[in-house]
Amino acid sequence: MAIEVFWISGSPFAWRVLLTLEAKRLPYESHRLEFSKRDLHTPEYLAINPRGQVPTLRDGGYVVYESIAIMAYLERRYPETPLFGISAEETGAIWRVICEAASYLEQPMESFILPIYGDAATEKADQVRAALPTIRDELTRLEAALRDRDWLATQAISAADIAVFPLVKSLLRAAGKPAASAFEHGLTPFSTKYPALAAWLVRVEALPGYERTYPPHWR
Amino acid sequence: MAIEVFWISGSPFAWRVLLTLEAKRLPYESHRLEFSKRDLHTPEYLAINPRGQVPTLRDGGYVVYESIAIMAYLERRYPETPLFGISAEETGAIWRVICEAASYLEQPMESFILPIYGDAATEKADQVRAALPTIRDELTRLEAALRDRDWLATQAISAADIAVFPLVKSLLRAAGKPAASAFEHGLTPFSTKYPALAAWLVRVEALPGYERTYPPHWR
Repeated sequence: MAIEVFWISGSPFAWRVLLTLEAKRLPYESHRLEFSKRDLHTPEYLAINPRGQVPTLRDGGYVVYESIAIMAYLERRYPETPLFGISAEETGAIWRVICEAASYLEQPMESFILPIYGDAATEKADQVRAALPTIRDELTRLEAALRDRDWLATQAISAADIAVFPLVKSLLRAAGKPAASAFEHGLTPFSTKYPALAAWLVRVEALPGYERTYPPHWR
Repeated sequence: MAIEVFWISGSPFAWRVLLTLEAKRLPYESHRLEFSKRDLHTPEYLAINPRGQVPTLRDGGYVVYESIAIMAYLERRYPETPLFGISAEETGAIWRVICEAASYLEQPMESFILPIYGDAATEKADQVRAALPTIRDELTRLEAALRDRDWLATQAISAADIAVFPLVKSLLRAAGKPAASAFEHGLTPFSTKYPALAAWLVRVEALPGYERTYPPHWR
């Protein structure tokens, strides 16, 4: 039975899973759900993801959700093209970057992008403004990680790059919206502010199959 | 060279690492730091953990921080007594529970316990009150996971149990403080409200070496 992935366009978390499948060159059946059609709250979907979130992966009769858990499952089930390192030291470095993104970047990212996407940037201006210094600080840390190498955690692309990439892309998309211009967010021009990260984005985008993962409604 | 662990008493994140080391029966050198002595901000400590957080693990010349990353490193480096599953399906289930705790429980836990520990429960009463329904909901989900088995993700103790246990213990300790009695938190008596979780706590506490991990200043 095929690997099936349930996702919505523009979810950075779902994007991680699509990128992982492409990086591992695994064939998969894609189920694009639409939040506006309440696809995430049908009884069928809630049966495989009780939180009504994306992404979810089904592989034969086995179901797993939470983006990072899906990535860890795929690594164990399909070890070819390892994304979590080829030594314990690499594994630790990769997970450190993933955990740091989860602990320090994801929440400020959402505090910034959700009001901008949700037409609430004026109303939630304080929240947006409060998130920006942390976002810039985390981007500066990532920029520094790329000083001596091409990838965030190791000498080759890893799960760390795949986990962080959609977060940065989501930040940049939000930063380019008209509603973001009311804030001195300091994220753009990205190639001037964070040149190593900008070059790294291009490297990730060169991944074979990348185009298939790009959020359709962003085009 | 020995495994060294840097921790502070009462940090649920550091506690995870001590429990992992005991569960794997790995000998380690313990470095207890004191927040009040600014041990986390010495140049020596910042050199191994630039965020000035705990836990940090040093294993020979290798350093890794972020509790979950340390656990993943130890699993790969010392695979005996596996804590991340013996099949891909188990690995996925374990990581799902860990990711759910990180995404949904950790932040509300901190919103509840930090004001209570920090003598700010009155001032931050709204924050505490807002966190409680999510905390109860997440505990209810964990309770349900224990309906048919002894451990949160698999048939044996796993990294999921070790990652979640210190969060639940921290919640319960805060709930027992005088400052918590101003809130109808609904967490106690724990053995009545969440009987399966209460029994699970006792199972984790039976882990050989558990006593060595218990936060000294909680005694």
